[in-house]
Amino acid sequence: MSLHVHKYGGTSVGTAEKIQNVAKKLVDEKNTTGNDLVVVVSAMSGETNRMTELAKQMQATPSAKQMDVLLSTGEQVTISLLCMALEERGQKAVSYTGSQVKIITDDSHGKARIEDIYTDKLQADLAAGNIVVVAGFQGVTESGAITTLGRGGSDTTAVALAAALKADECRIYTDVDGVYTTDPRVEPKARRLNKITFEEMLEMASLGSKILQIRSVEFAGKYNVPLRVLSTFIDGDGTLITYEDDEMEKALISGIAFNRDEAKVTLAGVPDMPGVASAILKPIADANIEIDMIVQNVAEDQSTDFTFTVHRNDYEKTMQILQNICTQLGAKKVAGDDKIVKVSIVGVGMRSHAGIASQMFSALAGEGINIRMISTSEIKISVVVDERYLELAVRTLHESFGLSKE
Amino acid sequence: MSLHVHKYGGTSVGTAEKIQNVAKKLVDEKNTTGNDLVVVVSAMSGETNRMTELAKQMQATPSAKQMDVLLSTGEQVTISLLCMALEERGQKAVSYTGSQVKIITDDSHGKARIEDIYTDKLQADLAAGNIVVVAGFQGVTESGAITTLGRGGSDTTAVALAAALKADECRIYTDVDGVYTTDPRVEPKARRLNKITFEEMLEMASLGSKILQIRSVEFAGKYNVPLRVLSTFIDGDGTLITYEDDEMEKALISGIAFNRDEAKVTLAGVPDMPGVASAILKPIADANIEIDMIVQNVAEDQSTDFTFTVHRNDYEKTMQILQNICTQLGAKKVAGDDKIVKVSIVGVGMRSHAGIASQMFSALAGEGINIRMISTSEIKISVVVDERYLELAVRTLHESFGLSKE
Repeated sequence: MSLHVHKYGGTSVGTAEKIQNVAKKLVDEKNTTGNDLVVVVSAMSGETNRMTELAKQMQATPSAKQMDVLLSTGEQVTISLLCMALEERGQKAVSYTGSQVKIITDDSHGKARIEDIYTDKLQADLAAGNIVVVAGFQGVTESGAITTLGRGGSDTTAVALAAALKADECRIYTDVDGVYTTDPRVEPKARRLNKITFEEMLEMASLGSKILQIRSVEFAGKYNVPLRVLSTFIDGDGTLITYEDDEMEKALISGIAFNRDEAKVTLAGVPDMPGVASAILKPIADANIEIDMIVQNVAEDQSTDFTFTVHRNDYEKTMQILQNICTQLGAKKVAGDDKIVKVSIVGVGMRSHAGIASQMFSALAGEGINIRMISTSEIKISVVVDERYLELAVRTLHESFGLSKE
Repeated sequence: MSLHVHKYGGTSVGTAEKIQNVAKKLVDEKNTTGNDLVVVVSAMSGETNRMTELAKQMQATPSAKQMDVLLSTGEQVTISLLCMALEERGQKAVSYTGSQVKIITDDSHGKARIEDIYTDKLQADLAAGNIVVVAGFQGVTESGAITTLGRGGSDTTAVALAAALKADECRIYTDVDGVYTTDPRVEPKARRLNKITFEEMLEMASLGSKILQIRSVEFAGKYNVPLRVLSTFIDGDGTLITYEDDEMEKALISGIAFNRDEAKVTLAGVPDMPGVASAILKPIADANIEIDMIVQNVAEDQSTDFTFTVHRNDYEKTMQILQNICTQLGAKKVAGDDKIVKVSIVGVGMRSHAGIASQMFSALAGEGINIRMISTSEIKISVVVDERYLELAVRTLHESFGLSKE
């Protein structure tokens, strides 16, 4: 007999009927496997937005502390409804708010971090045959203030509970049936992965595959909690996120990620001297603009071209700041392009296989796709290409690395 | 400087605009009087019904324990929104759920009773210049389960907090501007009372003037908390509910109450022997039917007529039970009438003034109103009359006892 933590997001519990569906799945699972089950749920979809609208009618900038008091009611509604649906099926169930569990967090309202979780009561309830239902996304400070973990934080609650309870598996039920080699809307031949490593998942998530909140994957990796992503609505095994094993090492690449939200800016002809990078990037950081890729080439005339990417929403602002810097540093000119995308290949196989980068570049060259920027990490190679080449680039790489369905 | 507890019900906080209005009143009051303010709020009107509907879609008979988890979110939403509106006006505010205050109750979910209230944190918050906003209607058991005090329980929360904090006054803001001598819809000359005693208020409330929850009035009387009923929407002094004083003793009668929800049943020709009353009333009580007035007359032939009133909804069921009893006891017949009303005069003045009953009866006789039943207590005389005479009876008594406006 195992202990599994399940997590159902807002769309999985968005209506009374869907909550009944989740209750049915849980009772079936308990009867079939005899597993102990802890279930983490989000607010019903739409509730968070409804409450945020109310808050805006109260205060121009609603206080983060009171937003937490407000928003945490969303999951509290869901835990009570799910327990009722379970009891209606003859299944004993107990509900817990974050505060009742004592999911202790720091006091960063709206984006609190979990510091400790008390599990004694939950374990006693499990031993007594209950399904334990816990409100996701929320915690409580040592002094009793209600906190939330921020958007998507229910994933983190589930993983943290799984770690604290030493669960055998943490299952994230969502509206997709697993992690795919790439977005099936771009490449219909995309294939569901049976397994992926934590590191690869982190790269995939941060690159735009918005299935799991990054922090929850980090947490699962840190505490070695096997994490499985699967569909609430379609039966299947989903994708297991775990540590590298032999099977995974055989694959060169696990998936192709991409990001349409980037823009590229260049400060050209910057005098090549110490402190230049900092002089350029500090004003950007001070304006709360996040920088993604950075590339710097030294030219022959002792000047350098400095290129980086930002979120497309920050493009105009970034260009303005760069104009000022350009004058100050005596650089030649500022150039920019917000019609670019980033395409990345991700895979732990890169560590043990040579020639992956050259295979990527020649596959793209074969289709006449010009590479505008390159950035690499241990298990990822990213290129920036013109926006119009996105679909072609993804499909080409998907085919080239043998990711397509049989 | 005084400490006042305010309570705003569901209609007073039913929209974002109304919550802003409450915030404005509170800030004005704090700035004008410098009083310490503790504010108890209900769920926004409509929310409780919305959640109850959701619950019914989960479970045929929703578990009382989970209903408490569900419904308690209603007031939690209001406390956060009101605090935001107060902060928007530059007023420091702190919110508390029942659980955060530690309003300790027994574990009778859905109708819990308050056992203890911790006030240290609230007092510290008041001392620091905050308006303290508390969720009404809810508490927590010693073991941490969320409880609710039942419908209208926010009044009880306010009074209990006022008692625990030794507040100078507990103000219940509602959609009427005070307690009236009778229902103004029946007698337009009805006058708002400046003061009324706890005992009179209890009689008025139980007789159908549904302004305050009875338990909260009992509680206020027991702990001698001056209670004031006043309007959220119209400025005014409302009605103070307190202990008897000289001013009040001068009045014969404080008000005329009435109840349209009664039905009268009679078991006629019952053998007059010990145990008969119990033989009649036990099966009624066993069927969970509440009995209001009871009258028994002994006739000359050693038999008796036994008459009582029940809620009109229980009339048919009561008649059926009486038919059975009639046969068992060898009584003559069962009679009933569900077209009757109860009209009562209420006043502590009765204690020190003779002739009140006869004045009442002759006033009614003067209008040709036949009295079908009479019942008296120390500060109340109730009569049952035909339904069609209700308005005439109320107006006649209102005039006779000098209650009308100048």
